[in-house]
Amino acid sequence: MTARGPLLKDELDIVIPTIRDLAFLEQWRPYLSPYHLIIVQDGDPTKKIHVPEGYDYELYNRNDINRILGPKASCISFKDSACRCFGFMMSKKKYIFTIDDDCWVAKDPSGHEINALEQHITNLLSPSTPLFFNTLYDPYRAGADFVRGYPFSMREGVATAISHGLWLNVPDYDAPTQLVKPAEKNTRFVDAVMTIPKGTLFPMCGMNLAFDREMIGAAMYFGLMGDGQPIGRYDDMWAGWCCKVICDHLGFGVKTGLPYIHHSKASNPFVNLKKEYKGIFWQEEIIPFFQQVVLPKEAVTVEQCYIELAKQVGEKLKGLDPYFTKLAEAMVTWIEAWSELSGCQKAK
Amino acid sequence: MTARGPLLKDELDIVIPTIRDLAFLEQWRPYLSPYHLIIVQDGDPTKKIHVPEGYDYELYNRNDINRILGPKASCISFKDSACRCFGFMMSKKKYIFTIDDDCWVAKDPSGHEINALEQHITNLLSPSTPLFFNTLYDPYRAGADFVRGYPFSMREGVATAISHGLWLNVPDYDAPTQLVKPAEKNTRFVDAVMTIPKGTLFPMCGMNLAFDREMIGAAMYFGLMGDGQPIGRYDDMWAGWCCKVICDHLGFGVKTGLPYIHHSKASNPFVNLKKEYKGIFWQEEIIPFFQQVVLPKEAVTVEQCYIELAKQVGEKLKGLDPYFTKLAEAMVTWIEAWSELSGCQKAK
Repeated sequence: MTARGPLLKDELDIVIPTIRDLAFLEQWRPYLSPYHLIIVQDGDPTKKIHVPEGYDYELYNRNDINRILGPKASCISFKDSACRCFGFMMSKKKYIFTIDDDCWVAKDPSGHEINALEQHITNLLSPSTPLFFNTLYDPYRAGADFVRGYPFSMREGVATAISHGLWLNVPDYDAPTQLVKPAEKNTRFVDAVMTIPKGTLFPMCGMNLAFDREMIGAAMYFGLMGDGQPIGRYDDMWAGWCCKVICDHLGFGVKTGLPYIHHSKASNPFVNLKKEYKGIFWQEEIIPFFQQVVLPKEAVTVEQCYIELAKQVGEKLKGLDPYFTKLAEAMVTWIEAWSELSGCQKAK
Repeated sequence: MTARGPLLKDELDIVIPTIRDLAFLEQWRPYLSPYHLIIVQDGDPTKKIHVPEGYDYELYNRNDINRILGPKASCISFKDSACRCFGFMMSKKKYIFTIDDDCWVAKDPSGHEINALEQHITNLLSPSTPLFFNTLYDPYRAGADFVRGYPFSMREGVATAISHGLWLNVPDYDAPTQLVKPAEKNTRFVDAVMTIPKGTLFPMCGMNLAFDREMIGAAMYFGLMGDGQPIGRYDDMWAGWCCKVICDHLGFGVKTGLPYIHHSKASNPFVNLKKEYKGIFWQEEIIPFFQQVVLPKEAVTVEQCYIELAKQVGEKLKGLDPYFTKLAEAMVTWIEAWSELSGCQKAK
């Protein structure tokens, strides 16, 4: 049902926040090496990342970010994988696949390696169905269709902006759940891709994520996390809430499910708890905010939507913590930098 | 995570619209024979259904329905499996499992028979999560949990009212899709149960369905279909739209996914097209109606919600066809009969 073949060349960049283990690139070589990598080094700029032969890549460290963005570099997180969004801005390609360096090639139940990138592209190139739930999951997949009672007028679906992939082995749990269930592994391979319905928020994980940069890239901002900030590990969540609200407003689709990667190791739950604990409180107010937010009809580009969202974040979440005033300003700075650098459609 | 064991006795009835092939009851014997069957014969009352030894059952034909309901029997469809809802009314149990007689015991990918009833009960006894999407599907299942970013205040979930099971082999397609894809079979076993988010409608199929009769039974009305009516094969869809809107209003959960049954044969697509074609037009207006319907805060019981829904159906869909005036009246009659007979909480 996709209009094109499963793989794209010269239309996709791979963005990786940092690479600590070069075996990562060796294992992914058959799948990733045909593409261009953008590596955004999240820590000490003096440390050198050695990318093996055969990979075409560009590498940015903090000094590069400061040089390229000047004062606007303040919107990019430091010493945190949230800096990956700088790579989204530097790309000139239509699609982005972003993956963490502790994610390995997973195997399907028959023991075959999963080409995660290929599945993401399939997801992005086929429509989404956010307006009505199809009980047999992705209706565009071979062997499936819309079930009885699915309105025919909705069967064209809508264009897909985001493909959210999942994780076998170590699941993406928060620190409290990690502490309570230190040994829990995700061993269940659920052979499904589904559209997250309009009006429903989800926790978007940045470990294994692909998106259409031209459609939604301007909202794929990972916020202010890490060094100098009161919070961490909410970078992808923040991007997910913002993107979902904007996708719903603009009529774009968001999918979750396949592909799986193999997530090798859980990060330290004590360190994570320190990063997360404010987020755990704050999300109790942030999520109702995003569930109720209404964007004006006049906001017809992602940039316009994002600026409006920044305004509402500044107004409605500032009572929660002064951090949100700073974050709202950073959201505006991000859009200014995006409009200058991204090569995407400019905000009017 | 369920508060009780997986199986209930004396709390569940099995409702079957008719039984044409007694091998059906033989195959299901290990799973269904511990329970009481309510068979609602959908056709000629003079034909006798022979239930094999060892089954405890009650059987109603059209004459029984007329005798028991008197003038209110007009709300129960004739010569259509929609008559099954009469069985929901006659039951005095908390839970109902309803299944069609062309549904057989399915096998999971490892070749083991699936105890569909046990899975339905597990689904009904564990909470639902309609307010926020969990990307690892059912968080209450062994080996799964809520992922990072899922608000802690929502992790208790809400009580589950409906468990919608799926079908391997012949999928539940409408007549046009059957005609276009006569040979398509569903061979994909998706090992997941998920909550259908609040505000999202779905096409509820009555083939393999369980629900909490005390919670939602009063809305599980299968409408006016079959003999003397301009439409068929929308009985379960109608019930699904009404139930979902009411569950959303009252804060109940609806799940879909496991268990699978093996659906043996597709019904005749030409006959189906004749039954469905008005529904195919009408659903284009009915679904937006249900997507926008708002129930008043004062409606706090299912019966009150259903009466209000009947009123709005009468007002807003009557322009589509005089049938909807009749249907709105039948919805009120259904609630009157339900309140008299069901033994559930009465409408105030």
